Amino acid sequence: MYLSTHFRTHNCGILNISNVGETVCLSGWVATLRDFGGLSFIDLRDRYGITQLSFNMENNVFLSEAARSYGREYVIQAKGKVVERSNKNPKIPTGEIEILVEELTLINASETPPFTIEDNTDGGEELRMKYRYLDIRRPLLSERLILRAKMIKAMREYLDERSFIEIETPNLIKSTPEGARDFLVPSRMQKGSFYALPQSPQIMKQLLMVAGMDRYYQVVKCFRDEDFRGDRQPEFTQLDCEMSYVSQNDVLNTFEGLTKHVYKKIMNVDLPDFQRLKYADAIKFYGSDKPDLRFDCKIVDLLSENVIKNSSFPLFLSAEENKQIISGINANGCAAYSRKQTDELVEFVKAPHRGLGGLIQIKFNEDGSVKSSADKFFNEDQLREIGLLFNATKGDLILIVVDREAKVRKALGDLRLEIAKKQNWLKKDSWSVLWIVDFPLFEKDEESGETIFVHHPFCAPHPEDLQYIDSEPLRCRAQQYDMVMNGWECLSGSIRIHERELQNKIFQKLGMDEKEIEERFGFMINAFRYGAPPHGGCAFGIDRWVALFANADAIRDVIAFPKNNGGRDIMMDAPSVVDSKQLKDLGIKFEF
Amino acid sequence: MYLSTHFRTHNCGILNISNVGETVCLSGWVATLRDFGGLSFIDLRDRYGITQLSFNMENNVFLSEAARSYGREYVIQAKGKVVERSNKNPKIPTGEIEILVEELTLINASETPPFTIEDNTDGGEELRMKYRYLDIRRPLLSERLILRAKMIKAMREYLDERSFIEIETPNLIKSTPEGARDFLVPSRMQKGSFYALPQSPQIMKQLLMVAGMDRYYQVVKCFRDEDFRGDRQPEFTQLDCEMSYVSQNDVLNTFEGLTKHVYKKIMNVDLPDFQRLKYADAIKFYGSDKPDLRFDCKIVDLLSENVIKNSSFPLFLSAEENKQIISGINANGCAAYSRKQTDELVEFVKAPHRGLGGLIQIKFNEDGSVKSSADKFFNEDQLREIGLLFNATKGDLILIVVDREAKVRKALGDLRLEIAKKQNWLKKDSWSVLWIVDFPLFEKDEESGETIFVHHPFCAPHPEDLQYIDSEPLRCRAQQYDMVMNGWECLSGSIRIHERELQNKIFQKLGMDEKEIEERFGFMINAFRYGAPPHGGCAFGIDRWVALFANADAIRDVIAFPKNNGGRDIMMDAPSVVDSKQLKDLGIKFEF
Repeated sequence: MYLSTHFRTHNCGILNISNVGETVCLSGWVATLRDFGGLSFIDLRDRYGITQLSFNMENNVFLSEAARSYGREYVIQAKGKVVERSNKNPKIPTGEIEILVEELTLINASETPPFTIEDNTDGGEELRMKYRYLDIRRPLLSERLILRAKMIKAMREYLDERSFIEIETPNLIKSTPEGARDFLVPSRMQKGSFYALPQSPQIMKQLLMVAGMDRYYQVVKCFRDEDFRGDRQPEFTQLDCEMSYVSQNDVLNTFEGLTKHVYKKIMNVDLPDFQRLKYADAIKFYGSDKPDLRFDCKIVDLLSENVIKNSSFPLFLSAEENKQIISGINANGCAAYSRKQTDELVEFVKAPHRGLGGLIQIKFNEDGSVKSSADKFFNEDQLREIGLLFNATKGDLILIVVDREAKVRKALGDLRLEIAKKQNWLKKDSWSVLWIVDFPLFEKDEESGETIFVHHPFCAPHPEDLQYIDSEPLRCRAQQYDMVMNGWECLSGSIRIHERELQNKIFQKLGMDEKEIEERFGFMINAFRYGAPPHGGCAFGIDRWVALFANADAIRDVIAFPKNNGGRDIMMDAPSVVDSKQLKDLGIKFEF
Repeated sequence: MYLSTHFRTHNCGILNISNVGETVCLSGWVATLRDFGGLSFIDLRDRYGITQLSFNMENNVFLSEAARSYGREYVIQAKGKVVERSNKNPKIPTGEIEILVEELTLINASETPPFTIEDNTDGGEELRMKYRYLDIRRPLLSERLILRAKMIKAMREYLDERSFIEIETPNLIKSTPEGARDFLVPSRMQKGSFYALPQSPQIMKQLLMVAGMDRYYQVVKCFRDEDFRGDRQPEFTQLDCEMSYVSQNDVLNTFEGLTKHVYKKIMNVDLPDFQRLKYADAIKFYGSDKPDLRFDCKIVDLLSENVIKNSSFPLFLSAEENKQIISGINANGCAAYSRKQTDELVEFVKAPHRGLGGLIQIKFNEDGSVKSSADKFFNEDQLREIGLLFNATKGDLILIVVDREAKVRKALGDLRLEIAKKQNWLKKDSWSVLWIVDFPLFEKDEESGETIFVHHPFCAPHPEDLQYIDSEPLRCRAQQYDMVMNGWECLSGSIRIHERELQNKIFQKLGMDEKEIEERFGFMINAFRYGAPPHGGCAFGIDRWVALFANADAIRDVIAFPKNNGGRDIMMDAPSVVDSKQLKDLGIKFEF
């Protein structure tokens, strides 16, 4: 619904051929000015679009000269008649008309902006962040913010229809650090004490379930004081959800439904039912707990195959003894890779964080020949037999590695993605959305050797594995699940523990003593005394999902006023030094 | 839409006579247990309602005894058949049926809660805040949270339909304290520097207008580190809105529309068009800038009336000379007040913060007689003449005071409210919603004598008063407006300054020098160089509005997890002492 205001009867995106003959008033920014002797044109821009204003020297010298005196980004108001254009622009909705301007008002002048306000701007990243209010004027950015709002609206629609209640939880809470560092807020009323900003509303939403609210959601800011790296922001937005009286299956069905609703509503895509892939299988077949399944390229394990056992290849023969596995992938259609290209793949798996020794290659050439980097140890029949295990056909390239299992899976997981990028298998408009289920409950911290939780200490163990909690904790699966979209973890959640004794036991397993449990989580453990219902939920990472739909590189591209990689808002200049009076009020001194 | 889950086919509020014969499964909390020898009943409660479970000793001894062993707030699951009740309860939607239980599972036991989970609970305020998760189980509280969600949904509906875009602004911003104190967040990455939590997104929403977003809204948490008193919370929620290319009239029409939409949708009330009362008139007639107009009772000024001038009352005769005014109100129907009651009114205006000397009373008794506390100085004709000025009729009580104007208006404003309370004129289900417009731009700080802004330094002056900015700043009106609901300021807003020079001038008028302006507001002033559009907006106080509709005494009654009056979350125990390691990371020491 468009409402006319004091400054305009219409916006710059709404007029078309059906309005010809109407007298209208528009306001907006001068996007471009074109001058052809007697004729001048201004493209007037606002959030809704661009409308061409036309000035004719013959009709009105004064107006034409005023128009010519304007610069880019001037704010102006123009009244005039809608007429059909002679030179139509089919690319924009208003392209068939223009306004013959009869009155013109300069509302606010503009200095020359530090970069051009166009989708293909000439401004660098830092400059555009400093002048974010100008960057957002570029349709590319403003449309992303609009997309974001529409996606969140679609999420709310779905949840509102299903008895979920949006409930706000506080931002000034108690510091109960788990994993990441809390941002702290010093208390003035009680000097020396702090509130913390929530890393997530996890405990509060669980208390809302104890409170009987049954179905909760919240679009909520979360805060983590981490060392900024890659695509992270110190504050980010979650769609946070929780349900009572549910099994894992109920939660998966509900949020699979939400995801399909958003895809349909926003992208007009009908997603098929999501695959539910066990964590162990994800690692086994794709070397990742967030596999991108827009392409297949599964990992094939060869250790127990006769063709391998019967070979004369020393590396293969010693594998079992060395507690290594032999596995590979089929890079479909890559047989024609040059020596330089395959060398790059070898370097890729040898990179320090993957640390493999090398890569055995078997090329199934288009001419029917087979060629391997291990030709010395395999005859052609053997190579073809290996090829069968990968369903290799002409044009395929088999890549095989040997090492400890964890390293092999990780390296091959990375390698399949690397090849997908090179081969352009990651189509922007194709979608792979799936569930990963049956995550392990605990893992061993590589540095300390301690048992730590994989997700958070509130995840319920898998009922079948409760028996192993004391004897073999690392064998316990959790009722935890992630949703993975095109290789990105967009949702994480779990069925929670709702029994006080079990929760206590898990805390103890994680090395907390009674005192620490009481201090950090006493109020939560206490709440479980009074009839906590079974419950579970999840949280979607909204920023990343929007970035995915917006085809944006980074989440800061879909946030109105983001921080840079150093956690600074360079537009406002925050964080900054504050008045000494403010520090005195808080009783704070610094020591570095 | 209700979706069945693993633990239930229906919720506890949905079954009725049409379901008789169905086999269902419910889960919930034991609200009450009643035992009549062979028959036992459990009222099973969840967020949606209460359903009666019925157990018959004859049918199943085992089940009946299990049921009898349960306590209040036990979480149970019951399967059975829906049957028509013999003893129907017309007060609840499920009151015509009950469940003949065939299977029963104890999901989680409960200790005896510290107070009863009923609307009329026995728990005190502090106890209920400590166990907030139990307090929310009371339908009174959970329904308030649901009301809150519905109201916010209705606000979004209205705005979404009118091209407003919900945009999130950051919570970690630069400290630019105006008026209230900022909550600060120490930066670990840049020790000694701070982020601030926003007191409101004011500057950011104005930058979104500069950015061309045109129509913005956000349901947003705001933070103020004030000394807690009365009904305040350190974090509270606003519906924050801003529009470009608008006049004040456009903003008033838009948000009057929103308010009517919410009243209609939530309360099924059709509000008439809102009165637009000038600030000066609000003070003159009601002694308040947030008058409750559910009743009239206007202040009547008497100073220039002949009957006053011609009286022999020394207090009246000396008024003009003493720069005092003589004004009063008509307390309709209060003529029968006892001496004790009128003495209370006298004490009321003499209270230190009102500081008046007394109250002249004229009673227009039901029997037709007139009686005044100033009978000595007025004959009956004179009293009746004064009565005419107040439209006094039989049964009315006129109350007159004499003092400096500001004190008189304030005291009579308070007095009309006090009488309204005593006379029960403030009906819960009647609504007075109006605009106050034409606020002054500046005021004189009573302590320092400095010129300070009334609202905030971004309010645009009234165009007619721009001429007085230098010569008579206190004469300038602002394009500022409040919306007042039943005597409470529920919205405040203004047309903003969009010209750089004017904004600079206003900052200077408020005593800031160039350096301070640059440090605190440089990024904003700078943004105005690049074509800022005319814009204006407002913010609704959501907590209070919900409290009004919920008929709640305090805003903490409509917040899931509020702070107490000392700013503490007594459930979580926040703020609290943190690890010394956390302080070391921040480089913080305390000195008290």
